[in-house]
Amino acid sequence: MEKILTDLCVIEGAAFVAAPLCGMTLAQLGADVIRLDPLEGGLDARRWPITRDGKSLYWAGLNKGKRSIAVNTRSPEGQELITALITAPGEGRGIFLTNFPTSGWLGYENLCKRRPDLIMMNVTGNPDGSTAVDYTLNCAAGFPFITGPAHGHQPVNPVNHVLPAWDAITGVTAALGILAAERRRRLTGEGQYIRLPLADVASAMVGNLGYIAEVQVNDEDRQSTGNYLYGAYGRDFETRDGRIVYVVAITPRQWQALGKATGTSERLAMIEPLLGVDLSREGDRFKAREVISAVLAPWFGEHSLEEIKKAFEGTAVCWGPYQTFRQMVEEDPRCSTQNPLFSMLEQPGIGSYLVPGSPLQFSGAERVPPRRAPILGEHTDEVLSERLGLSAAEIGRLRDSRVVAGPIELT
Amino acid sequence: MEKILTDLCVIEGAAFVAAPLCGMTLAQLGADVIRLDPLEGGLDARRWPITRDGKSLYWAGLNKGKRSIAVNTRSPEGQELITALITAPGEGRGIFLTNFPTSGWLGYENLCKRRPDLIMMNVTGNPDGSTAVDYTLNCAAGFPFITGPAHGHQPVNPVNHVLPAWDAITGVTAALGILAAERRRRLTGEGQYIRLPLADVASAMVGNLGYIAEVQVNDEDRQSTGNYLYGAYGRDFETRDGRIVYVVAITPRQWQALGKATGTSERLAMIEPLLGVDLSREGDRFKAREVISAVLAPWFGEHSLEEIKKAFEGTAVCWGPYQTFRQMVEEDPRCSTQNPLFSMLEQPGIGSYLVPGSPLQFSGAERVPPRRAPILGEHTDEVLSERLGLSAAEIGRLRDSRVVAGPIELT
Repeated sequence: MEKILTDLCVIEGAAFVAAPLCGMTLAQLGADVIRLDPLEGGLDARRWPITRDGKSLYWAGLNKGKRSIAVNTRSPEGQELITALITAPGEGRGIFLTNFPTSGWLGYENLCKRRPDLIMMNVTGNPDGSTAVDYTLNCAAGFPFITGPAHGHQPVNPVNHVLPAWDAITGVTAALGILAAERRRRLTGEGQYIRLPLADVASAMVGNLGYIAEVQVNDEDRQSTGNYLYGAYGRDFETRDGRIVYVVAITPRQWQALGKATGTSERLAMIEPLLGVDLSREGDRFKAREVISAVLAPWFGEHSLEEIKKAFEGTAVCWGPYQTFRQMVEEDPRCSTQNPLFSMLEQPGIGSYLVPGSPLQFSGAERVPPRRAPILGEHTDEVLSERLGLSAAEIGRLRDSRVVAGPIELT
Repeated sequence: MEKILTDLCVIEGAAFVAAPLCGMTLAQLGADVIRLDPLEGGLDARRWPITRDGKSLYWAGLNKGKRSIAVNTRSPEGQELITALITAPGEGRGIFLTNFPTSGWLGYENLCKRRPDLIMMNVTGNPDGSTAVDYTLNCAAGFPFITGPAHGHQPVNPVNHVLPAWDAITGVTAALGILAAERRRRLTGEGQYIRLPLADVASAMVGNLGYIAEVQVNDEDRQSTGNYLYGAYGRDFETRDGRIVYVVAITPRQWQALGKATGTSERLAMIEPLLGVDLSREGDRFKAREVISAVLAPWFGEHSLEEIKKAFEGTAVCWGPYQTFRQMVEEDPRCSTQNPLFSMLEQPGIGSYLVPGSPLQFSGAERVPPRRAPILGEHTDEVLSERLGLSAAEIGRLRDSRVVAGPIELT
């Protein structure tokens, strides 16, 4: 069996989260993704989190399975090599992924002179091309005012997401855009210049999830409900042994199962006449959430996490434990080599740790085990020889004149 | 110009966020996405947020641009219609998207008897197939313990994301998986059964972003840093007029620009000998974050949002205002019809409001303006006639025997 994206080759000139995540997502499905790295390392080559020796765990995480060629992008010869790589012939080639402002020699029009059916994906900040990053968009996208402790009608101190969710969604959307364009090119021969503004990904998702309609149709300001799930029943509970679990009842089946498993069905039914609600309706469960919680909380407080796990096993109760990152790594079999998603991998300069592959599993294609991130310029020679047909002598000359280099250990 | 995903047809039997978002993402790129809706509406047909009349803004948001056929899935005739739709011949057809446990007549093996090259995408909860939803995974994925106010070494009350980020990432990843499989089918003729566990999307992203390595390599527990950006400089500041802005300095250029625009460069330089740090390094800016903030805060407190906007315009300062959903809709031109991402759209039973299309812009393909969500079973007749070649008489008989129906107004 072959990898699902065999025969796809993407040249990546990118930094930070969204665009490198796009390249990695494709690499983990089997695409040959070649990073263009400046000789001194890119803007994000040292980004935190780092090891005690200053090696970037962040960079290693987002560049897995790619190849790296280190090129002096300021030299005309370096620019010519990059242009040649991006526009190299071949059906699944001619794809350039970047999140830098591109103009001049690296502009789409210029590159198209060499390969008119080029596919270029440009992840930008704002729709007008100006800079924006996850953190300067997240603050503008409403969520920080409804995240964190429940409060009254006025917005209080906003709470940012720590997960760079907009970056993550954008990275996968960019990969989708590349495949859509490559499909189109196979059908029609046409190239594409694709723009994907991070801000538009955020605005679109706010709209998709109904928040714009709430303002415009209902004239309502969504308020924080703390850790309560909005619109159905969902809450966090402390256990006897000081752990915390989250329980939801979105469907009628989950709601029935929760009452049954906790032995509270009869008391939960008393809430209906008490508040005049019909708890078979998700919205009424939301309205009655605090009373429901008052009935359920003692049960959770009287049971340990292990007992709760046993009580819910085999039932339709939908729940999960809270876990710190450490608990996730140390306790959760889903985050271990018991799950084929993960492998232990040795990353040079960093060490051995648990690394995920693609969450997509294809029945008819090989599951690509995760591959480590490259050393800067680790594949300089092989890429120049393989992709551009350069001889050892020509590569030697480019190395001598510092047009290319690698492998380079960053300090 | 044609739409980028012209000739792709996906049959969707799905509820909640991730899988319907997958279908909508493809529909907004021009695919023909046909929802299979039960006659009484799906599990999520009434999900909150809702209008005052009980119409689901949520459902309307996640099913834009799709067609809907309402079928009695319990009747053998209904099951045969669905099977025929899923396995209909045609190059870009034979794609089934679901997030339900499928077995028996709707199982992959059974469907493959009718169309061996079927592509079936099954979005599941846990990798073992058991139920999990965004909220019961988010709690297990570490982030709630580092979201919210900064605190000491011990984890305190967790703060959930309100954005269903794992659902959103999963929805787009599922769309990517379908395109990858369809590409493969065009090249080799092979079908695919694709599994995408929501839990694996979350675990993989935690790993991709370096959090697993922090535990295993550094033996460190990431702690909350409140709204501070981890590893570089980023913080929220109050303005003179009671607004809040977020400012980041990830790159050296952004850092220089911030000092210059706020007139604090000289004082910021004094921090270096004070704390023994080199503020040209992002990690040192993180270490010195509180002192940097003490220098910057008065400037923000002395300026209004409008003045800050003017002061930063044309500079490399990377910043954004905090906005509630209402402020986003009422103040931000990026979230208005000034941005071609958005159109005003009339959704029957709900009203007219601002609706986003796809954030992906393709130079060589039509930008698909957003289309409203269907009424339940709005396209029953046209789908049966167009896709299965049924006559008006046959459709009439199916309607009379309540095998199909529509359009249905949910109450």
